[in-house]
Amino acid sequence: MFEVEVKFRVSDVNDIVGKLRSFATYVGNDVEEDHYFNHPCRDFATTDEAIRVRLYGSGKVTVTYKGPRLSGEGKVRVEYNIDVDSASNTIGVLKALGFREIAVIRKERAEYTYGNYTIYVDKVNELGDFLEIETLTNDQGMVGELVKNIMGFARRNLGIKEDSVEPKTYLELILSKGQARGNE
Amino acid sequence: MFEVEVKFRVSDVNDIVGKLRSFATYVGNDVEEDHYFNHPCRDFATTDEAIRVRLYGSGKVTVTYKGPRLSGEGKVRVEYNIDVDSASNTIGVLKALGFREIAVIRKERAEYTYGNYTIYVDKVNELGDFLEIETLTNDQGMVGELVKNIMGFARRNLGIKEDSVEPKTYLELILSKGQARGNE
Repeated sequence: MFEVEVKFRVSDVNDIVGKLRSFATYVGNDVEEDHYFNHPCRDFATTDEAIRVRLYGSGKVTVTYKGPRLSGEGKVRVEYNIDVDSASNTIGVLKALGFREIAVIRKERAEYTYGNYTIYVDKVNELGDFLEIETLTNDQGMVGELVKNIMGFARRNLGIKEDSVEPKTYLELILSKGQARGNE
Repeated sequence: MFEVEVKFRVSDVNDIVGKLRSFATYVGNDVEEDHYFNHPCRDFATTDEAIRVRLYGSGKVTVTYKGPRLSGEGKVRVEYNIDVDSASNTIGVLKALGFREIAVIRKERAEYTYGNYTIYVDKVNELGDFLEIETLTNDQGMVGELVKNIMGFARRNLGIKEDSVEPKTYLELILSKGQARGNE
């Protein structure tokens, strides 16, 4: 299964939420705290992988591994998700294995659905407001088509322009901010 | 919390089970399939660590990390246990991170309790019958004393001699068997 996802920067989040409410189904709201780790002997920034422990406001904890992006446009990756019973033990194991915690990202996330799309409106600490539109496919050959469909949907239904696409992950954005601060 | 554990080789398992039934509480029986992995960039055989995905007959799945033994006598280690919802996703993540599966060990395990002891009678594929007696302590200074207590208990209550202590883990025993076969 491939996740096809496009992320956009949002300047007027109230406008977007108003439009979403008029046609999409509101699923729920959650607070998420993401702990990202780097590998003990390869640099995930180079290999374009990620390992993340996510703590939900509900108390649920998941571990996610994301493989390298398979396509430059949109974000298509192989992904594994595991529900676990303890964030502290999971982080304990990762650290014992030599994984280094490189960032913690906190966000408020509102989730909507519309047709085959899952739509997230994210307020991310230090980074601002974003919209993510996601769909799934078993057919990797469909990815380009699905990315185009997402773009068209965002333009027509939410008034979002292509130049507000944000190709970087939140982790990459947080790390590049840290580097920018380090360079000041 | 430190786990203090002594393992014994058993020649006459029916004799041991008969004795256990006369004084210990039978907890239950399970089948366990253990998948062991080696680290992508350090050799757990050298660092004396282990990462294991255990599938229980009940369908439960746990991940265990065991740190290096802190004491030669008995087996005292720092240990983390995590319940996970999917063995295949967990193994998928470990392999994607470069961990290599080095052995699968299947055993039938019967569990008993007596006082502060948990007692396991194990029938291990390729290795035979074993008895493990385990207790927990917060005080590392107590470990030597607790190992002595376990030895005395095994001798008095189960007629097991000190020379049947097996200091190796099942993983070490399986791997050394493989090496022995490789040398034939």
